[in-house]
Amino acid sequence: MSRVALVQGASRGIGLAFVRALLERPDVDRVVATCRAPEASDALARLGSKHGDALVSLRLDVRDEGSIAEAAERVEATCGKRLHWLINSAGLLHDDRGVRPEKKLEDADPARLRAVFEVNAFGPLLVAKHFVGLLRHEERAVVANLSARVGSIGDNRLGGWYGYRASKAAQNMFTRTLAIELARRAPNAICVALHPGTVDTQLSRPFSGSVPAERLFDADRAAHQLLGVLDGCEPEQSGCFLAWDGEAIPW
Amino acid sequence: MSRVALVQGASRGIGLAFVRALLERPDVDRVVATCRAPEASDALARLGSKHGDALVSLRLDVRDEGSIAEAAERVEATCGKRLHWLINSAGLLHDDRGVRPEKKLEDADPARLRAVFEVNAFGPLLVAKHFVGLLRHEERAVVANLSARVGSIGDNRLGGWYGYRASKAAQNMFTRTLAIELARRAPNAICVALHPGTVDTQLSRPFSGSVPAERLFDADRAAHQLLGVLDGCEPEQSGCFLAWDGEAIPW
Repeated sequence: MSRVALVQGASRGIGLAFVRALLERPDVDRVVATCRAPEASDALARLGSKHGDALVSLRLDVRDEGSIAEAAERVEATCGKRLHWLINSAGLLHDDRGVRPEKKLEDADPARLRAVFEVNAFGPLLVAKHFVGLLRHEERAVVANLSARVGSIGDNRLGGWYGYRASKAAQNMFTRTLAIELARRAPNAICVALHPGTVDTQLSRPFSGSVPAERLFDADRAAHQLLGVLDGCEPEQSGCFLAWDGEAIPW
Repeated sequence: MSRVALVQGASRGIGLAFVRALLERPDVDRVVATCRAPEASDALARLGSKHGDALVSLRLDVRDEGSIAEAAERVEATCGKRLHWLINSAGLLHDDRGVRPEKKLEDADPARLRAVFEVNAFGPLLVAKHFVGLLRHEERAVVANLSARVGSIGDNRLGGWYGYRASKAAQNMFTRTLAIELARRAPNAICVALHPGTVDTQLSRPFSGSVPAERLFDADRAAHQLLGVLDGCEPEQSGCFLAWDGEAIPW
């Protein structure tokens, strides 16, 4: 029985690093890399040349539910009705259409809040909705949603970043609620929220200037650390919020 | 100096009960009742006949930011640049356009998630954005956002209700982040998230059948209990999540 991993948001950053790391693992046979435009990703093309059929690249845009449903059908057709890792990595903190973390109340804008919530919060939930059928099998499965410590309500001491923080808090609630549903419907599946630390990616680069070098991880290191956390997860940790070093983070 | 209270979502349920309770208080001079269609509310019309100028009814739809800005201007013009209570009460759990709490993943729907988040999460944030200028004065001010225990991530043991739960978790993050910003900009303002208990309103009626009678509050009792909690709030409780009996609820 081959083991299959899917990474959503795989064209760059931590998502791409997850794909690279999973392709190297002897216990993974197929890696499904999904992103908005896989045909435009040189990095995925290079990995495809190197790994052949072990890499399947599919279009999946979390803002387009039809594309999620279609990707789920394609995965089932290509890899069978089982998934062992489902990693939601896409995140939106800033873009070139005016989304940026709010410094103060006056920066809050409904259209930008919607954009941030669609990617960071609704996205992982809708992916779970369409892939839940592939998590019901006899082997261990892991669903990991990339969260962030700034999404911890209890740990919030600095303020600001309204939309990003709250979208991750909402995602955390989705993760915990999903864990409860999976315990009933797919009892071998563990579901956790992950804090990767501060990682040197396009998402965090404008804001990581003050992070000491030894605490700023490159994406490959972050992916390996998080896969290690997932490998060590016990079933009773399903529904938890874990940092890159395995530490539990308060909600 | 007159003391002014504003209730958003005042046409029915706990919001309307807050208006009634505040109009009876000797320490409140004006109550601004806002809702989507104040002209259609018989209950507000009756209170207006009884209380005259002490009640100001204004249109405010949290899904229409222009209406929030306009209401803020009207309040400033009518009551001066100061607000002592700002209570966000509008909440969406179900409606006659297909929104209802999800029983399982397959019930999750992007359009309905957006509708729920716009009212429950983005609403209180956008109200704070436009009213923050009225909270900067020399007297005590309280911002209260109606949350719910089911919005506690840590307390979630039953699962289900994805959208409502996560929208309240997001609202809770907004409340805490707002408390941090207010500490800087409006240091006399306290900001809390409130759990009213299970209240016999249109929102909870379809789901409160199993709640014992002594734990099912009528809206007037709920409003009085919550005003008591707000009266007792200390500045160091700003940014907290408090139940109707004053107990702190985990995030």
